[in-house]
Amino acid sequence: MDKLNNTLNSIKFLDHAVMDETKKRWDSLVKPIGSLGLMEEITIRLSGIYRTTKFDIDKRAVVVMASDNGIVEENVTSSPQIFTRILVEKMAKGITGVSVMSKAANADVIVVDIGINGDVKEENVINRKIRYGTDNFTKSFAMTYDEAIKAIETGIEVADDLFNKGYKILGTGEVGIGNTTTSAAVIKAITDFPIDDIVGKGAGITDEQLVLKKKAIIKAIELHKPNKYDVIDVLSKVGGLDIAGLVGVYLSGAKNMKPTVMDGFISQAAALCAIKLDGRVKDYIIPSHLSKEPGAKFVFNEIGLKPMLDLSMRLGEGTGCPLAFQIIDTAIYTLNNMATFEEAEIEKELLVDISKDEEK
Amino acid sequence: MDKLNNTLNSIKFLDHAVMDETKKRWDSLVKPIGSLGLMEEITIRLSGIYRTTKFDIDKRAVVVMASDNGIVEENVTSSPQIFTRILVEKMAKGITGVSVMSKAANADVIVVDIGINGDVKEENVINRKIRYGTDNFTKSFAMTYDEAIKAIETGIEVADDLFNKGYKILGTGEVGIGNTTTSAAVIKAITDFPIDDIVGKGAGITDEQLVLKKKAIIKAIELHKPNKYDVIDVLSKVGGLDIAGLVGVYLSGAKNMKPTVMDGFISQAAALCAIKLDGRVKDYIIPSHLSKEPGAKFVFNEIGLKPMLDLSMRLGEGTGCPLAFQIIDTAIYTLNNMATFEEAEIEKELLVDISKDEEK
Repeated sequence: MDKLNNTLNSIKFLDHAVMDETKKRWDSLVKPIGSLGLMEEITIRLSGIYRTTKFDIDKRAVVVMASDNGIVEENVTSSPQIFTRILVEKMAKGITGVSVMSKAANADVIVVDIGINGDVKEENVINRKIRYGTDNFTKSFAMTYDEAIKAIETGIEVADDLFNKGYKILGTGEVGIGNTTTSAAVIKAITDFPIDDIVGKGAGITDEQLVLKKKAIIKAIELHKPNKYDVIDVLSKVGGLDIAGLVGVYLSGAKNMKPTVMDGFISQAAALCAIKLDGRVKDYIIPSHLSKEPGAKFVFNEIGLKPMLDLSMRLGEGTGCPLAFQIIDTAIYTLNNMATFEEAEIEKELLVDISKDEEK
Repeated sequence: MDKLNNTLNSIKFLDHAVMDETKKRWDSLVKPIGSLGLMEEITIRLSGIYRTTKFDIDKRAVVVMASDNGIVEENVTSSPQIFTRILVEKMAKGITGVSVMSKAANADVIVVDIGINGDVKEENVINRKIRYGTDNFTKSFAMTYDEAIKAIETGIEVADDLFNKGYKILGTGEVGIGNTTTSAAVIKAITDFPIDDIVGKGAGITDEQLVLKKKAIIKAIELHKPNKYDVIDVLSKVGGLDIAGLVGVYLSGAKNMKPTVMDGFISQAAALCAIKLDGRVKDYIIPSHLSKEPGAKFVFNEIGLKPMLDLSMRLGEGTGCPLAFQIIDTAIYTLNNMATFEEAEIEKELLVDISKDEEK
């Protein structure tokens, strides 16, 4: 619990003076002010995170938290629980979606067993198992309060270690059969959004299973009455170890003054928790894509961030992150290499014309 | 006129047998069916365009059509007309937005003067000038019917030449002060969407100028009565040489069985025209981003395509294209390098579980 408290107590606001400098640089370039949209906003934010106008994200990784969920007993998933372990082992071999996409984007994949219900046979998977999966939350709490904290602290430790090794940005990924159910439950507990808005078909369940999924979430929330003002309470009662681990990754990013890139629905649930713990964490999180999971857009509204990509993806694993890394690369390159009006020797009167172009 | 007719007469449907093969490949990979969304759809379409399951887009360029618009006389722009020529010269030097972003994405930029109102002083700009800018379409037709055809044919020739040189994909870009006005006019003439939906502030005009911009478009359409069933008529009366040139680029892509990537609002207006000329052209067009210009989303609905990126960009020049190239690269790499269930040695019963996961 000390680690979590210390982490939260060391988070700082972004450096707005540096951000102003970066904005000035963008505004000096040969284009209408603000016309590169998120490319500008993201790099401005990155400069405030890194506390410098000169930065890059050359060394990067996706951190994949993998764990199992007792809720699969309620027939809310399309794949059996054993698939979590199998997929993680294939991921460590570099042949699943996030592995291949990360290779294309020069990013590493760090796979963490934070609670798989079985023993993983791959050395490349970091063993930080807290327990062999959670309990079925329609019957008891998913995990204890202390286990939820321990899972968050595990995420902090894993990410701290990576930042210490020189990683400049981390993406969030996950594997865990049943984790769109746990994510929807966490989101429901915190936001009280209508259940039909936030529960979707995940990897692909039947209409009958969708009914069971909604019922399971409603039942658990009625039974355990998670306290929306206490994120740890929510996570322990209806969450998952993967979600809690990712909360830790976001917190570590903020503490280390490094950005984290958010993947899809499960990563959003974790981001929601991290931001509830400390609102300043939001400024350190860069969303990648809008998941096809229907609840995703509502969570974006709630946390006030906007995704760059809309690819109707619903694979999870962290697959949005390598794509985001590449866009951020281009944004940084553009910031550093476009000509200013002065360098382009464009007459002052034209510059004035352009400078008044700001669109609200 | 022969070139345009011949081009339209040589367009073919995509090869759906090859597309089925590519879809089969995606469905064999270790993930829920369809879960990589547009990454899958785009590569499936590319295989149908290229008529092969083995393809890449290593050699690529953004074609920038640059021209001037007489409509600037009506005070509908934030920058003076001379800025078209200046920006084009800077672009040819490699220091504007599209140049820098294309460099980051290993793409070339091909700048074409198809009607700048002035003589361009850069050798790197291809001189295919049809006339020194169009006329003010609130007073007379923007150009003659024959000039509109010639501009389309010029676009075809430029793109044909690039495909012959080995380019595998072309993006569409443009420079032309006043061309959100001409684009909105073309879209209005063809779709009759409400004027308030499709006219925006472009690079950044005042509220007063926005009123003038809408009035100019309404006046021109009432005056010239463009025939919505005759795209050439629309282009000649209220269009621009850059838009017409881009129509040619799209048509050349379809003819040469090569994909074209669509940038923002002006490129959309051109795509709308190209698709009206021949509906099969749509299958060869890959949209990049959703422009911040408010009409963009309505045009997407009209043509039935979906952008990958939503970055609130409104710079034009073709800046969405290099970003799209990078995403397509990753999609192709993922298609070719992810493991199949068989390669991953995942048991048949799990494969069955996953295969039924298709979400509609």
